[in-house]
Amino acid sequence: MTAASGVRAAPDPARLSINTATVRAQWTLPEIVDALARHGIRGISPWRDQVARAGLVDSARRIRDAGLFVSGYCRGGMFPAADAAGRRAARDDNRRAVDEALAIGARCLVLVVGGLPKDAAGRPVGRDLAGARAMVRDGIAELLDYAKPAGMPLAIEPLHPMYAADRACVNTLAQANELCDEVAPGDGPSLGVAVDVYHVWWDPQLPREIARAGAAQRLLAYHICDWLVPTTDLLNDRGMMGDGVIDLPAIRAMMEAAGYRGAHEVEIFSGRWWKVPGDDVLATCKARHAGAS
Amino acid sequence: MTAASGVRAAPDPARLSINTATVRAQWTLPEIVDALARHGIRGISPWRDQVARAGLVDSARRIRDAGLFVSGYCRGGMFPAADAAGRRAARDDNRRAVDEALAIGARCLVLVVGGLPKDAAGRPVGRDLAGARAMVRDGIAELLDYAKPAGMPLAIEPLHPMYAADRACVNTLAQANELCDEVAPGDGPSLGVAVDVYHVWWDPQLPREIARAGAAQRLLAYHICDWLVPTTDLLNDRGMMGDGVIDLPAIRAMMEAAGYRGAHEVEIFSGRWWKVPGDDVLATCKARHAGAS
Repeated sequence: MTAASGVRAAPDPARLSINTATVRAQWTLPEIVDALARHGIRGISPWRDQVARAGLVDSARRIRDAGLFVSGYCRGGMFPAADAAGRRAARDDNRRAVDEALAIGARCLVLVVGGLPKDAAGRPVGRDLAGARAMVRDGIAELLDYAKPAGMPLAIEPLHPMYAADRACVNTLAQANELCDEVAPGDGPSLGVAVDVYHVWWDPQLPREIARAGAAQRLLAYHICDWLVPTTDLLNDRGMMGDGVIDLPAIRAMMEAAGYRGAHEVEIFSGRWWKVPGDDVLATCKARHAGAS
Repeated sequence: MTAASGVRAAPDPARLSINTATVRAQWTLPEIVDALARHGIRGISPWRDQVARAGLVDSARRIRDAGLFVSGYCRGGMFPAADAAGRRAARDDNRRAVDEALAIGARCLVLVVGGLPKDAAGRPVGRDLAGARAMVRDGIAELLDYAKPAGMPLAIEPLHPMYAADRACVNTLAQANELCDEVAPGDGPSLGVAVDVYHVWWDPQLPREIARAGAAQRLLAYHICDWLVPTTDLLNDRGMMGDGVIDLPAIRAMMEAAGYRGAHEVEIFSGRWWKVPGDDVLATCKARHAGAS
């Protein structure tokens, strides 16, 4: 790889946040909180399963005591279900996610909206992608009625099209923006988007759609990592910033031009990085945030 | 999987064509031609490397003698290059591909446009995706000046976004349609698109963009297979029609409503199907074309 294109000011190190999935194989949540303090990293974005293992109240206290900001809470969503009972279960679980996000002091609840409905064994049921998208729209509208009065912004994260069937049927930022406009017109901070470079870097409409989201006050989160060539696994082969082909400074410039002043959250699912000592991962995240993002 | 949605007339078996990559591990091109005749399959879409091994003149004669139509020739493209010499080499190679497509009697030359420029070792150079897309536009315009007088339609194939870096930086049908309109406005049959369900099935804009391509006389090819859940490999884990989540009858209906009357070309890159005896693969293609496409 050559250096990232263009000459731009390095990002503010105070905006760096670590999504806890990045070091989930190495550490528990309390260990991650301690490590972030040790490395002088200011932000965290915890996953629900890690919080559940450590305890919600204790996790919230540790994060607060460490002086960390919480760039997002991962995650709500997974709206489509094969029957009404499944949709009710998703609704209830998503309300609990909102409650947890509030307790943990998160800036937003990230929504990975789900793909096709699944059967009890986790296999997709049917092929009705448009129907799944309708369930997503309805599920978000219903959750917003719960989250908005509580003051927890919902951030729809468009996922890469390779996850359309099994993880999220919202696959472009344009689609997420349209969904926001349909469900909550003019209600920018309550419902918005999480822009993860891994999912959207390829999109020729990206500059336009980031500007559109910014103008509507919908840019709630910004996740960074890199796209490796070759990519050897659909799920767990994300790259460290600078190791792949994403022009991170260019996308950050789009975000900043659109008014985004929030965190730069590193989220790396990687079988390789999960084998590296956690302190080395965090040191690398800091260095690459400064030098290649 | 449940049955494909809706009740639609089965496709005309005479439209079935086999892309030779589907059985490339089992057979040479002459063997594939013989096998298609044996199975009563009327169409073929050969790859250049297989033609080169069998000889162009001999391949053309065998295909003609077997009474096969050639739904497309795979493939031209790969326009971006790191320097002028590389772009000239791509230009010359693409002109040879046009010549071969004419010799073989293909209905179109399929263009896989290429991703980021590569170095001599095949690694991506830089991160300028917009620059690569500009090279693609210029390369197609230049090739059209050669192909159009010769009477060989060029079919731009948008590839799935997971191939944006290394195979094709045209990643949606909207992008391909815009490219056609920019390079050759109003020149539908000379420059068009190849719609491969594997690459575009997830796209919420698909109905609109198929209709748009049809209205502009740009629907030059239609490739079918299926998207498996889970997909275990980015390149070679495509599914047989009916084994995955793509609503093939729905997409065929969009194509037909847009005026498409061409072939249904089966193109399956699959480490699993490459291990199955070729005759069984072809029998399955026939059955699934009739029952699940």
